[in-house]
Amino acid sequence: MEKSSHPYLSVNEIDKFTHNDIVYKTKVSNLLKVAQTMIFYYALKTVSVASQIALEEAGADYDLHELDFSTTEQQSNDYLNVNPKGRVPALATKHGIITETPAILVYIAQTYPKAKLAPLNDHFQFAKMQAFNNYLSSTVHVNHAHKIRGNRWVEDEDKVSQAAMKAKVPKTMAESFTLIEKEMFSGPWVLGENFSVCDCYVFCISTWLAGDKVNIEDFPKIHNHHKRMRQRESVKKVTGIHGI
Amino acid sequence: MEKSSHPYLSVNEIDKFTHNDIVYKTKVSNLLKVAQTMIFYYALKTVSVASQIALEEAGADYDLHELDFSTTEQQSNDYLNVNPKGRVPALATKHGIITETPAILVYIAQTYPKAKLAPLNDHFQFAKMQAFNNYLSSTVHVNHAHKIRGNRWVEDEDKVSQAAMKAKVPKTMAESFTLIEKEMFSGPWVLGENFSVCDCYVFCISTWLAGDKVNIEDFPKIHNHHKRMRQRESVKKVTGIHGI
Repeated sequence: MEKSSHPYLSVNEIDKFTHNDIVYKTKVSNLLKVAQTMIFYYALKTVSVASQIALEEAGADYDLHELDFSTTEQQSNDYLNVNPKGRVPALATKHGIITETPAILVYIAQTYPKAKLAPLNDHFQFAKMQAFNNYLSSTVHVNHAHKIRGNRWVEDEDKVSQAAMKAKVPKTMAESFTLIEKEMFSGPWVLGENFSVCDCYVFCISTWLAGDKVNIEDFPKIHNHHKRMRQRESVKKVTGIHGI
Repeated sequence: MEKSSHPYLSVNEIDKFTHNDIVYKTKVSNLLKVAQTMIFYYALKTVSVASQIALEEAGADYDLHELDFSTTEQQSNDYLNVNPKGRVPALATKHGIITETPAILVYIAQTYPKAKLAPLNDHFQFAKMQAFNNYLSSTVHVNHAHKIRGNRWVEDEDKVSQAAMKAKVPKTMAESFTLIEKEMFSGPWVLGENFSVCDCYVFCISTWLAGDKVNIEDFPKIHNHHKRMRQRESVKKVTGIHGI
C-alpha cells in the first residue's frame, strides 16, 4: 500500500484492488476517487504544452503532475511505472495511461466531443488531421530534438557530432515550417474554418522557433496564427504555467 | 490536359474539371473513374509495407504506383504534387491524398470497418493503438533512419557524423524493441486478442532488424509474431512484391 498512496498512480495497481475485502477497499477509496480524475504528467516548456492546451479547450477535469527535467525525474522508477519510455506527456485516465502527443490529442477530442476539437465524423478529414499531427511528431519535433538531444542518436561523448546536429536545426526547422506554411495550413485554422487539436500542437512547436534561430515572421500565416492563439484563454493559462 | 493523363493524379486537379462542358468532361471521364479507385504510392522495401499489408487485410480496392528511390523519383515535381514532403507512402483517395503511416493505417481501418483492424468504438483502446503506431513512427523509424538518412540532420558532406549516427542504430533499435517486447506487446497480437493495424506496422519494422544488426531472436514475442505474420495471405502477397 505504500506505493499506492504515491501521486504516481498506475492503473495496473488499481486493478489489483478489486477483491472484496471491504477494509482494503476503504483504504484505497481515495486512490480510486483520484483515479476518476485524469492526471496530466508534464514538464515545463516541453511538448506537453500542446496536450495541456487541448485539455483546457475541452474543459476537461484533470490534475497536473509536474516532472522536474533538471533532476531527470522522468527517468525515476516511479515515473517509469507511469510511462516506461520516460518521456512526457502522459495522461492517466480511469482506463489506463496514454502516451504520445497525437494519441493524447485525439483521445481528448473523442472524450469531449462537444468541444469540437477534431473532425470525428469524417474519415478523410480525420486522416488529414492525423497526418498533420504525425508530421509534427515524427519530423518537426525530431528536427528540433537534434538541438539538445543529439545523444539519442550518437554516443554521449561524441560532442562533435552533436554540435553538427545542433548546427543544422535552424535549417531543418525552417524547411518544415515552410512546408507547413505553404502546403498544410488551410487557414484561418490549420484544418480550415474549424479550430482543432492541430492548432494546439503547431502553436506549441511554434513557441520553439525563436530558440531554434528561426524567425516566425518569415511564415506570415503561422505568425498570425501564433498571435491569435495567444489571445485564447486556454493558451493564456497554459503559457502562464510554463512561462512561455 | 497534358498533365491530367499522367498517373500522378491530384485531387485538386480533378476539382478543376467540374464545369459543364460535356466534351471536356468526357475527356476526363477515365480520370474520374480512376479517381474512384484508391492509388497507393510506395517504394520497395520501405515503410510502405505496413500500409500495403493493411490494405490487403481490409480487402481494399486499390491500384499500386511504385516510385523508384534509386532515381529519387519521390523528389520529382510530379510526385511532389501528390506529396509535397517527397516521402512514401501516400494514399490517393476520391477525397484527396493522405500521407503519414499512422494516418493511413487508421483511415484504412475506418473505411473498412468490417475488417476490424482497429478498436474503433473504444476511445481508450483507440488511443493505445495510436500511441503504439506513433512510437513506431516518431521513435523507432527515426532511430532506423539514422543509418542511411543521417544527412537529414547534419550537412550532406559531414560523413563523420553520419557514420557516428549509423554506428548507434543497432543500440537504439535494440532498445526500442526491448521496450516493445516488455511493455507494449500484449499478445498474441500487439493490442491483445484482436489483430490490428499495429501488427502490420510492427511487422514491417521488424523486417529491418537484421539489416540494423539486431537479432530478432532476442525478442521472443516479436520473433514469434513475425513468423505468424508471414503465414498470412496479406503478408505473403506484400512481402512477395517487395522481395523481403
